[in-house]
Amino acid sequence: MAKKQPRNWKCGNRLWIEQDGRVVLGKGRVMLLEAIQREHSISKAASSLGMSYRRAWLLVQSMNEAAAEPLVETATGGSHGGGAQLTSLGESAIGLYHGLESAVRQAAEHFLKSH
Amino acid sequence: MAKKQPRNWKCGNRLWIEQDGRVVLGKGRVMLLEAIQREHSISKAASSLGMSYRRAWLLVQSMNEAAAEPLVETATGGSHGGGAQLTSLGESAIGLYHGLESAVRQAAEHFLKSH
Repeated sequence: MAKKQPRNWKCGNRLWIEQDGRVVLGKGRVMLLEAIQREHSISKAASSLGMSYRRAWLLVQSMNEAAAEPLVETATGGSHGGGAQLTSLGESAIGLYHGLESAVRQAAEHFLKSH
Repeated sequence: MAKKQPRNWKCGNRLWIEQDGRVVLGKGRVMLLEAIQREHSISKAASSLGMSYRRAWLLVQSMNEAAAEPLVETATGGSHGGGAQLTSLGESAIGLYHGLESAVRQAAEHFLKSH
């Protein structure tokens, strides 16, 4: 009789990055960073994700505070008043998160294949 | 000026194991398996975790169904009527989950240290 082995078990996960116990990045925050990178505006980024402006703004504040330096900079005046852009930390955070996701996925697949 | 590097960022995660899109194991389910292993009873296991018997019973059904073979066997008669014990799959699932947690944590730490 064919016995089903747990070999077709797959690993699911939710990842986040935290600093001093405060969440800096998670899947939704990274999607928001990517949208701000694309839209150069928190309001347009929020809208493209179907998220309220208030929620997006609070997430940006929360990221900036948790990281203890800004990932997103907002302009409050000038010709681009109200615009927003990623800092270099914000830019690198996107790649870091995706790299971490990939490293974790590979480690999990490798572990499940070999056990 | 000392620039804070994202080097003290830590990875948090929630892991689960699924089969054909259905969750077999997660942190809470593994804690329940460990309690059943210890208590030899779903009801005592539930109670030791501050969980209702109904919730524990539903989690056991869900695990057994998702894995397509039992992780927990319940005795419905005899001198140990109402008792429960892990199958060999249930026993090995506990170790597998903790091993997976550890592999993922190490991969995440290594990735964050080297990026």
